Amino acid sequence: MPIEAFILNGPNLNLLGTREPGIYGSLTLADIEANCREKAAALGFSAVEFRQSNHEGVLVDWIQEAGRRGAGVVMNPGAYTHTSIALHDAIKGTGVPVIEVHISNVHARESFRHRSFVSPVAAGVIVGLGPLGYTLALEALAGLLKG
Amino acid sequence: MPIEAFILNGPNLNLLGTREPGIYGSLTLADIEANCREKAAALGFSAVEFRQSNHEGVLVDWIQEAGRRGAGVVMNPGAYTHTSIALHDAIKGTGVPVIEVHISNVHARESFRHRSFVSPVAAGVIVGLGPLGYTLALEALAGLLKG
Amino acid sequence: MPIEAFILNGPNLNLLGTREPGIYGSLTLADIEANCREKAAALGFSAVEFRQSNHEGVLVDWIQEAGRRGAGVVMNPGAYTHTSIALHDAIKGTGVPVIEVHISNVHARESFRHRSFVSPVAAGVIVGLGPLGYTLALEALAGLLKG
Amino acid sequence: MPIEAFILNGPNLNLLGTREPGIYGSLTLADIEANCREKAAALGFSAVEFRQSNHEGVLVDWIQEAGRRGAGVVMNPGAYTHTSIALHDAIKGTGVPVIEVHISNVHARESFRHRSFVSPVAAGVIVGLGPLGYTLALEALAGLLKG
Amino acid sequence: MPIEAFILNGPNLNLLGTREPGIYGSLTLADIEANCREKAAALGFSAVEFRQSNHEGVLVDWIQEAGRRGAGVVMNPGAYTHTSIALHDAIKGTGVPVIEVHISNVHARESFRHRSFVSPVAAGVIVGLGPLGYTLALEALAGLLKG
Amino acid sequence: MPIEAFILNGPNLNLLGTREPGIYGSLTLADIEANCREKAAALGFSAVEFRQSNHEGVLVDWIQEAGRRGAGVVMNPGAYTHTSIALHDAIKGTGVPVIEVHISNVHARESFRHRSFVSPVAAGVIVGLGPLGYTLALEALAGLLKG
Amino acid sequence: MPIEAFILNGPNLNLLGTREPGIYGSLTLADIEANCREKAAALGFSAVEFRQSNHEGVLVDWIQEAGRRGAGVVMNPGAYTHTSIALHDAIKGTGVPVIEVHISNVHARESFRHRSFVSPVAAGVIVGLGPLGYTLALEALAGLLKG
Amino acid sequence: MPIEAFILNGPNLNLLGTREPGIYGSLTLADIEANCREKAAALGFSAVEFRQSNHEGVLVDWIQEAGRRGAGVVMNPGAYTHTSIALHDAIKGTGVPVIEVHISNVHARESFRHRSFVSPVAAGVIVGLGPLGYTLALEALAGLLKG
Amino acid sequence: MPIEAFILNGPNLNLLGTREPGIYGSLTLADIEANCREKAAALGFSAVEFRQSNHEGVLVDWIQEAGRRGAGVVMNPGAYTHTSIALHDAIKGTGVPVIEVHISNVHARESFRHRSFVSPVAAGVIVGLGPLGYTLALEALAGLLKG
Amino acid sequence: MPIEAFILNGPNLNLLGTREPGIYGSLTLADIEANCREKAAALGFSAVEFRQSNHEGVLVDWIQEAGRRGAGVVMNPGAYTHTSIALHDAIKGTGVPVIEVHISNVHARESFRHRSFVSPVAAGVIVGLGPLGYTLALEALAGLLKG
Amino acid sequence: MPIEAFILNGPNLNLLGTREPGIYGSLTLADIEANCREKAAALGFSAVEFRQSNHEGVLVDWIQEAGRRGAGVVMNPGAYTHTSIALHDAIKGTGVPVIEVHISNVHARESFRHRSFVSPVAAGVIVGLGPLGYTLALEALAGLLKG
Amino acid sequence: MPIEAFILNGPNLNLLGTREPGIYGSLTLADIEANCREKAAALGFSAVEFRQSNHEGVLVDWIQEAGRRGAGVVMNPGAYTHTSIALHDAIKGTGVPVIEVHISNVHARESFRHRSFVSPVAAGVIVGLGPLGYTLALEALAGLLKG
Repeated sequence: MPIEAFILNGPNLNLLGTREPGIYGSLTLADIEANCREKAAALGFSAVEFRQSNHEGVLVDWIQEAGRRGAGVVMNPGAYTHTSIALHDAIKGTGVPVIEVHISNVHARESFRHRSFVSPVAAGVIVGLGPLGYTLALEALAGLLKG
Repeated sequence: MPIEAFILNGPNLNLLGTREPGIYGSLTLADIEANCREKAAALGFSAVEFRQSNHEGVLVDWIQEAGRRGAGVVMNPGAYTHTSIALHDAIKGTGVPVIEVHISNVHARESFRHRSFVSPVAAGVIVGLGPLGYTLALEALAGLLKG
Repeated sequence: MPIEAFILNGPNLNLLGTREPGIYGSLTLADIEANCREKAAALGFSAVEFRQSNHEGVLVDWIQEAGRRGAGVVMNPGAYTHTSIALHDAIKGTGVPVIEVHISNVHARESFRHRSFVSPVAAGVIVGLGPLGYTLALEALAGLLKG
Repeated sequence: MPIEAFILNGPNLNLLGTREPGIYGSLTLADIEANCREKAAALGFSAVEFRQSNHEGVLVDWIQEAGRRGAGVVMNPGAYTHTSIALHDAIKGTGVPVIEVHISNVHARESFRHRSFVSPVAAGVIVGLGPLGYTLALEALAGLLKG
Repeated sequence: MPIEAFILNGPNLNLLGTREPGIYGSLTLADIEANCREKAAALGFSAVEFRQSNHEGVLVDWIQEAGRRGAGVVMNPGAYTHTSIALHDAIKGTGVPVIEVHISNVHARESFRHRSFVSPVAAGVIVGLGPLGYTLALEALAGLLKG
Repeated sequence: MPIEAFILNGPNLNLLGTREPGIYGSLTLADIEANCREKAAALGFSAVEFRQSNHEGVLVDWIQEAGRRGAGVVMNPGAYTHTSIALHDAIKGTGVPVIEVHISNVHARESFRHRSFVSPVAAGVIVGLGPLGYTLALEALAGLLKG
Repeated sequence: MPIEAFILNGPNLNLLGTREPGIYGSLTLADIEANCREKAAALGFSAVEFRQSNHEGVLVDWIQEAGRRGAGVVMNPGAYTHTSIALHDAIKGTGVPVIEVHISNVHARESFRHRSFVSPVAAGVIVGLGPLGYTLALEALAGLLKG
Repeated sequence: MPIEAFILNGPNLNLLGTREPGIYGSLTLADIEANCREKAAALGFSAVEFRQSNHEGVLVDWIQEAGRRGAGVVMNPGAYTHTSIALHDAIKGTGVPVIEVHISNVHARESFRHRSFVSPVAAGVIVGLGPLGYTLALEALAGLLKG
Repeated sequence: MPIEAFILNGPNLNLLGTREPGIYGSLTLADIEANCREKAAALGFSAVEFRQSNHEGVLVDWIQEAGRRGAGVVMNPGAYTHTSIALHDAIKGTGVPVIEVHISNVHARESFRHRSFVSPVAAGVIVGLGPLGYTLALEALAGLLKG
Repeated sequence: MPIEAFILNGPNLNLLGTREPGIYGSLTLADIEANCREKAAALGFSAVEFRQSNHEGVLVDWIQEAGRRGAGVVMNPGAYTHTSIALHDAIKGTGVPVIEVHISNVHARESFRHRSFVSPVAAGVIVGLGPLGYTLALEALAGLLKG
Repeated sequence: MPIEAFILNGPNLNLLGTREPGIYGSLTLADIEANCREKAAALGFSAVEFRQSNHEGVLVDWIQEAGRRGAGVVMNPGAYTHTSIALHDAIKGTGVPVIEVHISNVHARESFRHRSFVSPVAAGVIVGLGPLGYTLALEALAGLLKG
Repeated sequence: MPIEAFILNGPNLNLLGTREPGIYGSLTLADIEANCREKAAALGFSAVEFRQSNHEGVLVDWIQEAGRRGAGVVMNPGAYTHTSIALHDAIKGTGVPVIEVHISNVHARESFRHRSFVSPVAAGVIVGLGPLGYTLALEALAGLLKG
């Protein structure tokens, strides 16, 4: 059975590689996309949607789209991690399997980054491992979908 | 004088009927729309706008539109109930009468669903009565608009 | 099968119509009783108990009485809304269906009125619609009892 | 070296002048834009982008656009002031200089308006001075950009 | 115009004089009643109702009774001070002038005695002066009623 | 010297055995009374008062009555455990020895059941042992009274 | 034995009578001083020190001075009520008897006025009775000093 | 079927009888052990392990050991009651029945002793009955094991 | 009509320019005074009082003095911003218009600097713009006074 | 350069596979060890220490041992995650790279499992992916050590 | 190089020896001054300023004076320890080395004495050692200044 | 009478001198031991036990051992300062005099280091003076033991 992955990125992740490299590293989002496509192919994913948006509603739309297509999701919700109950509801409502990824170690930063509305409904969470987190998440997602 | 109703639905309410029926029931949003249009006609509403969006900003736009047209609003703000001060300000700023509706009993769920930014500026709130809440809200709205 | 309604009012609701009409309106509790009896008849209720008490324990007794008789309840718990775990337990322990009603918008008032011990065990909650809330609640209750 | 200003307005600020004049005054957003364009010309700004949106994501997009063009920003984030970590991250991630402006004295209003996610990453904050706050902010911004 | 005083005592105050004299002194409630009657006569009160109850509902009834008779109230609400929103509502709803009295210094005792639901709606509060507090309160009440 | 026991039960405990047996077991309050009377006789109690009330004030009265008669008390305060400072004061004011009993494990239930106003003034507390808790409490009480 | 009273007033009480008469009444501090001197004479006080200062340290000095002279104190600490542990320590350290007075009902105002550092070490507290509070406090103080 | 009891004591309980007898009584831990062995024999326990340790990890080891042997546990976790999630997990993970015992009334002491991580997973809790609590707990445990 | 400005500086602002220039810049308070006098003259102020004190009471005195003279105030309350209810009362009690200024961005510093007791009663607040904040504040004050 | 891994497991993880399989799955710790050894060999680790302890101090000892040997650490701290500042200090003090692993999704469980003292000093965190989390962590650790 | 010590005492420390000897001991401030002068001489201090004030502003002045003279400070801030951000700023702004001393063990007293605004900017803190704390502090200060 | 000192060090203090010298300095624990032995000899201590452990239970054992031998204790509890009620109980239960020492200024570090369970039962506390704190503590301990 073919498996599909949505790799969704939240607000400001399009800035990766050009700003605050001390926190986020020097890879751009395009570099991460390339790594993910290579890894996804190796893991047998038949299709990959790699997207970024600064809009909470768009991310909700995409989660629903993944749900309708039976895809799995790797998601870095960025700042909406900490404020969006709408994302929480979308994941719970669609039942789509989500691996939450954060490039930096959010637990070592400001306290308002310590709470995630996504984690309680995620299948798993990977934090602080840099861009590697994305490909590890794909590996975990493949396991879940092939389950 | 003709009276008009906006019936506005927030994020993930387009999933109604297909997911978590234990919490939200088996009616779809289209079923609810049909019930509302029938009830609105019986109550003498001259027009009904029945809409759904996953975007906070779009919901703010619609509240302002209702305000400009002198309509009343029945609103199920979904997850934005608990996080949107922008909706609060739109309702207060336009002075539009709003009946807030929640299908499930939010008070019996997670604590982050216990606070509503909409309730303090709503004309009334109906919680936990399932789809019936929408038509009861229309009834209340008709009373308010007819004065 | 005949259906019966208890309409229970908590402390100080006997003052309705004579005090703070800016908040509670000018209808007396007797007016509300008349409206409720008329509406209940139209909805097919075979009997209506309309009562008021300032005593927490009396309200608990009445909830239990409703439970023994298989009646449904429309309840405005007044100040006990916010402090009475005994009412919470009575509703949960008897399993009686309760629609909680508040005449004013408690969410727009003092913060100590924002917590309800009744809401988590109520079948539904109607807030801020004035005396109309009582008859809407009866309508909802009829739906629940007729199943 | 030419300097450019983005003057960004958040949700419901398009209602200015028509609603709640007791809090926000009688000037419209168009009046404020006219004042700002006149002041900006006097201060030597070569270009002014004056915009309003009810959408959090659009405001994030605009901050990033200002960052790419090397412009400075005067921003009244409206209700998103208090809820948007995405705006915080956009300002921090682009390094764009921002002067935060509020027309009313938010510190004298509801407690949920006392916390700003924008202030910790703003270059400066001007509160409660009415429309004058915008032109004072332009003056401060000119100083920052001219260095 | 004749003036009347209700002097109302909450739960456990009938134990005065026999228990915990280190905190409450050795006067009984009957002694306090005698002092109050003597003082009230000197101040020109035409009638005095001096009562005690362990029942929250009974105290609410009495506040309402005082309201109906146009009397003023000196009240030591005992433990209900800290938990009874019903008393708060009764005082506010009837508009009866109340001087709140506590024999011991509640502010120097357990923290759960630091919050009073009665104080925000009382005309005045006298704390920690022992039985003398009752007669001082009568003096203040006479001033209020004579206007 | 003859010793006497008051076994006092708070609100809704008259429902025992018929409701929520998963939490409270299938014994009725009458069954518990029978067990207690048998056990009390074996322990040498000369008299047993076994009572239940939904009224906070009545429970306060009974604590005082026990105090006047020099009896010991086994008490299951039900919901008043968590809200009644009046019971706290009655126990402290009379100095009556009280063993607090809860049939279910209140610590494993809702957080609002974790605070007891009775525990700080109880001689001992027995939680979660079902009806057995009552007879163990009598055993402990006998030890206290025989000194 | 001669008895002496210090009547101490904290910050901004020199503004009495000219500002916010809706809250504080129309009497000036000089009027209150006159009332106090008359009352003190009637009660047998041999000397009265009536003072006001905007300085926390000066109020501490005066408490210590009263302590050295064996006087009693009537004190309206104004805003320092809520922030000064130094006043708390001065009263506790000197052991001077203090009756705390507030003209307005601080419990009905902003929450930051609900906590008093003075109350736990005061002999008594009189709140919300207007200027009458001062003379009632003198009466109470006379009772304390005469023993 | 033979039944076995582990009676486990946490940190500092080896000090019993020699220190703070006002709080903990004059019996030593050896006295309690003797009482327990006598009572256990009477109740038909085939074996009793009576142990004490100051080490959290050792207590976890012992809970697991009891689980492997199918024994029941009477436990006084001492200070680890309030800080050890590891004990909570050990009890939950092994499913071993535990009766939690505290000699003193922890609810009447410092607030940091009011929370127990053991209580939510205990079969029962006995507090404040002194050494008697141990033998009552054995009685309860026998009932559970014979169940 | 002549207008007058009080420019008041709180504790430690006399250290400006010599310490922590990374936070406060290199201008001394004398430099700021010179800038202010020049700006005030240009704006048409007839008199300027520029003062600094480390004493809370002195600052309260000066606010009252400004009130008596009908002057407007630009104030940097320094550390008293966060602890002084006395300043809050002085501003509210005199009704004097105050523009609050902070040189550094207090919102980006320790959390105890995030609350201001002055802001709720200030006419406006300017934060983080360095010494420029003073002259902008004068500009705003001139507008207010010329009204 | 040879690289070495310590794989450390906290309290109760030796129970894996035999208890609560609904939460933790059916693999035993020995199964996980086998998976880890196989994966570590494939990644080029020259040595693997796979250990479990119920003792906080032992885990601290092991972190220090790893630090002395220049090894990397994969750690599932179990319940000590939420209570051990000593583990936090050991990781920070030795500078050893640690990947924190949790088999279950701790964010979807009790609130006392939401705070981790290890995360702020971990190089990365993997949550909720079951035993797979261990081998993904080894992969991440290999990347860190090979640098 | 000559070294100088300021030994500064906050509010109410002039009462030492005469009041509450159970908490503060029987030595007067003059006794402590004598001990300090003797110790300072032995440690090689060329000058000692030993002062006390009840005024927060005066203490701020003295810290600044010590800063200008390059002296070190031993300080017992008394009640201002817990409320003065101005002292915090003075120490941080001048960079003067401060050893904070408390005679009594503030951690064993009221919770409002547990927070110190001085400690985060102090070089060291000595608590609960009585007057000996002053001379130990001088010893530590000498070490710092000779550095 | 001979006096004996236990100098006890908690978790990770064996790392001193090799890690984070910016916070903890460059002295090793062996250096501190040497200083302490020299100072103890000078002060007349007949014996010194200088120990370190990463195990909470071992530290509790040692406190009890010191208690049995009548020794005094200088203790740096490291991370257990903030989490160990068991240490609190051991000190209180044995009555052993303890001087608590911290090398770094814990008040200037993370908020979870601001609370100490040891301080309320310590005879004194010395913070932030580096290794000197140990010898000052011995000096204070000698004074206590010599009485």
